Amino acid sequence: MENNNLVKVRRGNQIESRHHVHIAVVDSKGNLLHHAGNPDGKVYARSSMKPIQAIPIVETGAADYYEFSDADLSLCTASHNGEDMHTDRVLSILKRVGLEDTALNCGTHIPRWQDTYKELILNGKEVTPLYNNCSGKHTGMLATAKFMDEPIDTYYLPDHPVQQRILQAISDTCDYPKDEIEIGIDGCGVPVHGLPLDRLAYGFARMATPASFGNERKKTVQRITNAMMAAPEMVGGTNRFCTDFMAAGNGRFFGKAGAEGVYCIGDIETGLGIAVKVADGNGRAVYPAAMEVLVQLGLLNDDQIEQLTAYHHPKLHNARKEVIGELIPAFQLKHTSLA
Amino acid sequence: MENNNLVKVRRGNQIESRHHVHIAVVDSKGNLLHHAGNPDGKVYARSSMKPIQAIPIVETGAADYYEFSDADLSLCTASHNGEDMHTDRVLSILKRVGLEDTALNCGTHIPRWQDTYKELILNGKEVTPLYNNCSGKHTGMLATAKFMDEPIDTYYLPDHPVQQRILQAISDTCDYPKDEIEIGIDGCGVPVHGLPLDRLAYGFARMATPASFGNERKKTVQRITNAMMAAPEMVGGTNRFCTDFMAAGNGRFFGKAGAEGVYCIGDIETGLGIAVKVADGNGRAVYPAAMEVLVQLGLLNDDQIEQLTAYHHPKLHNARKEVIGELIPAFQLKHTSLA
Repeated sequence: MENNNLVKVRRGNQIESRHHVHIAVVDSKGNLLHHAGNPDGKVYARSSMKPIQAIPIVETGAADYYEFSDADLSLCTASHNGEDMHTDRVLSILKRVGLEDTALNCGTHIPRWQDTYKELILNGKEVTPLYNNCSGKHTGMLATAKFMDEPIDTYYLPDHPVQQRILQAISDTCDYPKDEIEIGIDGCGVPVHGLPLDRLAYGFARMATPASFGNERKKTVQRITNAMMAAPEMVGGTNRFCTDFMAAGNGRFFGKAGAEGVYCIGDIETGLGIAVKVADGNGRAVYPAAMEVLVQLGLLNDDQIEQLTAYHHPKLHNARKEVIGELIPAFQLKHTSLA
Repeated sequence: MENNNLVKVRRGNQIESRHHVHIAVVDSKGNLLHHAGNPDGKVYARSSMKPIQAIPIVETGAADYYEFSDADLSLCTASHNGEDMHTDRVLSILKRVGLEDTALNCGTHIPRWQDTYKELILNGKEVTPLYNNCSGKHTGMLATAKFMDEPIDTYYLPDHPVQQRILQAISDTCDYPKDEIEIGIDGCGVPVHGLPLDRLAYGFARMATPASFGNERKKTVQRITNAMMAAPEMVGGTNRFCTDFMAAGNGRFFGKAGAEGVYCIGDIETGLGIAVKVADGNGRAVYPAAMEVLVQLGLLNDDQIEQLTAYHHPKLHNARKEVIGELIPAFQLKHTSLA
């Protein structure tokens, strides 16, 4: 048991810690093709659902009305660093929508990007919701609410039409009943959605296979995934896996991280969807696991594997900047017999 | 398997993530009395060994020569916040030793205490090794090297007499052969020590039972554990479990956290030693687990359980400061049959 489905943490000659992973690889017809661990346990998708959550921004007409560029739409799917390029763009979208950043209800955390944090401190400014990694998603929600003439100040609550449209889009895309989706509260205050892991993978397989949808939704998902792949720097930022992975993928892959060790990938070329959950929720194990899945399935070329090696086999450094260990993905995907 | 030896992370109505824990409870004769998970797997003790690592500071005579107070000695066992009280005291000890803080070789990280970090930024100062949570331990090492007239600039290397004395003290206290102790490199550059979990618990049981040592070592361990319990604010700082636990323990318990989910406790009253390792290394699970062990063994009174409840059953908050879940220790210690 201890040696299966793990990402191991090596320090010196010893494995110091162990992360169990669950993995589901699903095609656009919903077949589970490969798995590791438990592929159908219910997991909160967290921010990995942001690409699907962006569907109503396009389908309501808000994206066209407010002239969303690829970068704008990409930012709506982001868990961003809070770099200037992200916060400037949030403000630019909000201006077009006719709202201030005070309308953002995502709460505050120290921005991931230390330079941003330092600048705020040096200028005697408070950390505001603008710097929250979810401020792009919330901006998309606000744009939809404003365009639809719905209440602005309650957009984050589960029964608001904005959240109900998102719930419906997730249910449709992942083909999972709305009333069986587990609802929790996310780090930024909006609902999070609990679905079986293979349903998350299926949702991404369908996003990667627009023909699996009817005509309107087909264009919508193409627009969203194209936007993410055209402006991957908006989805994460400098030194972030989502960004570097999509840049290396060069229009073939889109991927999105979720808190508590979730990662989802869609592969345009094969139409496969991949979902990874680290059982203990630690994000450090999720990129090595996702990379290992891509490599085992033969989806990456040698250049891409080389470019992304620091995410696949991360070295661990100490405060003296010495390499003291590494993360080692240690699992073998099992082929799942088709029914 | 999934339901044993866990600390669960609940979000809304669903368990979002799961931490496996290993626990050993050992008496001062070395008997394993209770356990959960695997009580004899080798784990890196990390900073949980700092109380034992302080033994040579006293036994070489350095602590007396440089007039170490309880607070000074307590700081040498610390993983501190980098609050003013910690960094001021490091500088005060170094001054008595006749060294500058540039002699600290522990590397740099952003101080845990945000006010300290903000002040550094506002004053245009660099983060230096002084603010490293291990700077107290390194100061103790430097004091010993200086007192013993040993090289100062290599004190952190495994073959330096400072590190060799520490290795010997750990081997003696935990009764585990020196050459079977696994050596890795810690976050701060010094050796870390890998021992079976029950040997860590045994070391703390002996520290809690000074009579288990010969005459000189007996006084030394009493001085160290008394120092930690007399000045617990030095071991961690504001809002830190080590500090609040020892304050609530009121001279009965000493405890020390180690990175990657390690916690060790000594109970002066029963002479028991407790060691906890979170298998995936996540520190958020280690305090609920340690608290649950203390409660299951009946070692805490109602007031102490009440005072420490935020560590036992931590609520999880989001960026909007809403309670969105909690950590739930979910294991039952097994009584181990004595041989």
